[in-house]
Amino acid sequence: MVETVRWDGQILWVLDQRRLPLDVVYCPCRTVEDVARSIKDMLVRGAPAIGVTAAFGMAIAAREIGGRAAASAAGHLASRAALLEATRPTAVNLAWATRHMLDLCRKTSHEHWIETLEAEAVRIYQDDIQRCRSIGANAAHYIPEEATILTHCNAGALATAGYGTALGVIRRAVEDGKRIRVFADETRPFLQGARLTAWELMQDGIDVTLITDSMAAHFMACRAIDLVVVGADRIASNGDTANKIGTYGVALAAHAHTIPFLVAAPLNTVDMSLQNGSEIPIEERAGDEVVLIGNHRIAPPDVQVRNPAFDVTPHHLITAIITDKGAVAGDFSAGLRRLFQCPESE
Amino acid sequence: MVETVRWDGQILWVLDQRRLPLDVVYCPCRTVEDVARSIKDMLVRGAPAIGVTAAFGMAIAAREIGGRAAASAAGHLASRAALLEATRPTAVNLAWATRHMLDLCRKTSHEHWIETLEAEAVRIYQDDIQRCRSIGANAAHYIPEEATILTHCNAGALATAGYGTALGVIRRAVEDGKRIRVFADETRPFLQGARLTAWELMQDGIDVTLITDSMAAHFMACRAIDLVVVGADRIASNGDTANKIGTYGVALAAHAHTIPFLVAAPLNTVDMSLQNGSEIPIEERAGDEVVLIGNHRIAPPDVQVRNPAFDVTPHHLITAIITDKGAVAGDFSAGLRRLFQCPESE
Repeated sequence: MVETVRWDGQILWVLDQRRLPLDVVYCPCRTVEDVARSIKDMLVRGAPAIGVTAAFGMAIAAREIGGRAAASAAGHLASRAALLEATRPTAVNLAWATRHMLDLCRKTSHEHWIETLEAEAVRIYQDDIQRCRSIGANAAHYIPEEATILTHCNAGALATAGYGTALGVIRRAVEDGKRIRVFADETRPFLQGARLTAWELMQDGIDVTLITDSMAAHFMACRAIDLVVVGADRIASNGDTANKIGTYGVALAAHAHTIPFLVAAPLNTVDMSLQNGSEIPIEERAGDEVVLIGNHRIAPPDVQVRNPAFDVTPHHLITAIITDKGAVAGDFSAGLRRLFQCPESE
Repeated sequence: MVETVRWDGQILWVLDQRRLPLDVVYCPCRTVEDVARSIKDMLVRGAPAIGVTAAFGMAIAAREIGGRAAASAAGHLASRAALLEATRPTAVNLAWATRHMLDLCRKTSHEHWIETLEAEAVRIYQDDIQRCRSIGANAAHYIPEEATILTHCNAGALATAGYGTALGVIRRAVEDGKRIRVFADETRPFLQGARLTAWELMQDGIDVTLITDSMAAHFMACRAIDLVVVGADRIASNGDTANKIGTYGVALAAHAHTIPFLVAAPLNTVDMSLQNGSEIPIEERAGDEVVLIGNHRIAPPDVQVRNPAFDVTPHHLITAIITDKGAVAGDFSAGLRRLFQCPESE
């Protein structure tokens, strides 16, 4: 399986997903600035992958401390965490990773931060793959023996350390011998579906058909789609889910056709501090992402453009949220709270 | 205002809309094959514009008759009509225009076909602009003094002989002094919204903001959109409406947010021979339109692609259908039948 990021003990090599599917190129991140840029410029994207990348960013930050005293070292690390957190405001995994690392530092003497943070980043990386596999297992109940599954954006191996969340659900179904076909929304403006999801599934020999985002409702009306599975960038405590722009429209269409709509995400995507989706900050990105495709301009110069990167799907449109700790349906507030109270096991 | 097609008495000059907004180029059509190619390859698109173009195609066909006898001449014209009709199966205006011309030939001695068909094509061209203005007037009641209006695809001057259907509604509202802002869906895969609607409205100084198709539902949830207006390629007798792929998803989202959804089209877009939308043929176009943008490939080589050009919006999602003969809401079957029985006046 393709590696989203690769740690060689010194340098974090980040797969430049902007150049997929035509080129497979890894960019070296030697400094925290390099790591921050790789997130902000979307070489790496997908909430879990961003979290893993930020964890390695903190490990790199620990190396920059040199001979500083404890207070100065802590200040440095806090400022590096702030730099990383500022890159993308919506994904909760990013701040989860940086704050988790800062917490760990508070419990450790600063002479040990380098090896502690590196070991923890590697552990988060490996955990992330394991979490994806658990999500796949926990979703199995919702996936029939034969199904055409629509997915939006890329919640695949490329959005995680490996295996994927939404695509992990699909991989697991294929591994279980189910007859699965996938429809992939191309996912404008950044085209993660066309460039990443189609490529990733074709690499694994999974049957995938590319459509534009605007075709999803039509194929639902044609009864060509049995199920929708998407990832999530942040989930509020009531189940409202922020995910890639366009997810909400897919959810509305699925609801109108009584097609099950599943959200697949690790439990650390859930932000229990938020009552509902209206509190999730929605990143607005530059308009050039909409009007330039490659170097090809598709709209008049100086046209006004809006480019929100995410939308919020209200929980009443979601059939189930599948996490690494279990699946929740119906009363999401109570269900998610229960998952957080579980011991650290499946 | 920009001219979609221009007849110089010998040659039909067709604006190559594929090259907009960067280049404004007119291609000469000297033969019926040229005209058919300009429709099939989408130099010209939009149901009313296709109808007008096909009418000029029939005028050109009449010139090809030369010294043939009446039966042979009629056979030639019928075969040219079939060629034109085969280019795009969904728009009803195309077959309406060719059959209207054949009907006219039956009532006229074949020595007069050249001047008769040319005069009729010019009349259809002028009528089309007048029809658009009538649609704009008949929609005025539905447009508030201040509104942000979402439109999908291009149902503008570029989709008609001039003025536009959906954009005619917007133009009329602006002429009436209403404070109108427009959100234009980019309209994948052919990008008529980005390339044509944004350009056309900017030419007229109308406030337009470009979004991807996947953002429409989000902006509805944000209460940024007050009203939706789209065109139509074919309307069944019960009001079910075929329009550019993606229209159905917009209609579902508008319905979920109780936002009025208007269809603006000349009455000749209504096909009273069809009971409902399931009988409307949906054209499927080549996958290259999805995976190539300009010369830029956005998906893996050999990926499977679907590319239906239209979808059907069921009548229960439509607030009103605005035609040149009047507006219909509620019981579309009865209302449309009534409009067809009206005398030839507004």
